[in-house]
Amino acid sequence: MSTETKHRSTAEVANRLVELCRQGKIIDAQKELFADDVHCIEPANGHSPTITGKQAAIAKSEQFATMIEEFHGEEISEPVIAGNWFSISWFMDVTMKGQGRQKMGEIVVYNVENGHIISEQYFF
Amino acid sequence: MSTETKHRSTAEVANRLVELCRQGKIIDAQKELFADDVHCIEPANGHSPTITGKQAAIAKSEQFATMIEEFHGEEISEPVIAGNWFSISWFMDVTMKGQGRQKMGEIVVYNVENGHIISEQYFF
Repeated sequence: MSTETKHRSTAEVANRLVELCRQGKIIDAQKELFADDVHCIEPANGHSPTITGKQAAIAKSEQFATMIEEFHGEEISEPVIAGNWFSISWFMDVTMKGQGRQKMGEIVVYNVENGHIISEQYFF
Repeated sequence: MSTETKHRSTAEVANRLVELCRQGKIIDAQKELFADDVHCIEPANGHSPTITGKQAAIAKSEQFATMIEEFHGEEISEPVIAGNWFSISWFMDVTMKGQGRQKMGEIVVYNVENGHIISEQYFF
């Protein structure tokens, strides 16, 4: 047996991310696909700081989940892929605790290296 | 007649950009769709500086065109759209003067405001 690691391609990472997130398994996706030192880059005008690290990304998703009162639905596009990069659109229809029902939409751009996501960047 | 301006939607801007660029009419697309103070944001690791302004963007495209020896083909994806943002993938197969044949691929993210593109950001 070879000890060489066969990395997932950008398309394989993109399709797996979309597959898991459409099933609501966002934290599973982060655990499986994020590099340990992933950068999560928020919009310049956003309320959240950019964070670094897989554990911090997972903690943020867990925190977001606790803020949801009711989840009405979401829609994630097929990925658009070029080289080590891919992008998706992501719509979410949720009632946030104390904030009422909101429809959110964003473009997310991902950078893949050695079969893992090393950055995600949000545009909304 | 109303003097109110009816702006193109993000989807209309996205589809028009893709339509013109697939016809090779990149400068026409810039003239028609870019805001006067558009920002063209290059990758952090890129060779080109970020530029501001429609005229500078057009001048850069004209400069790029002069560097092409032979154009072999390109492929532009359908746009992925969310709110005021959209993204596409863009592949180009060109022989650059003195640099040989190159296949380039990139993700581009656009921000639309009042029916015009106010920023484009490249990822490659």
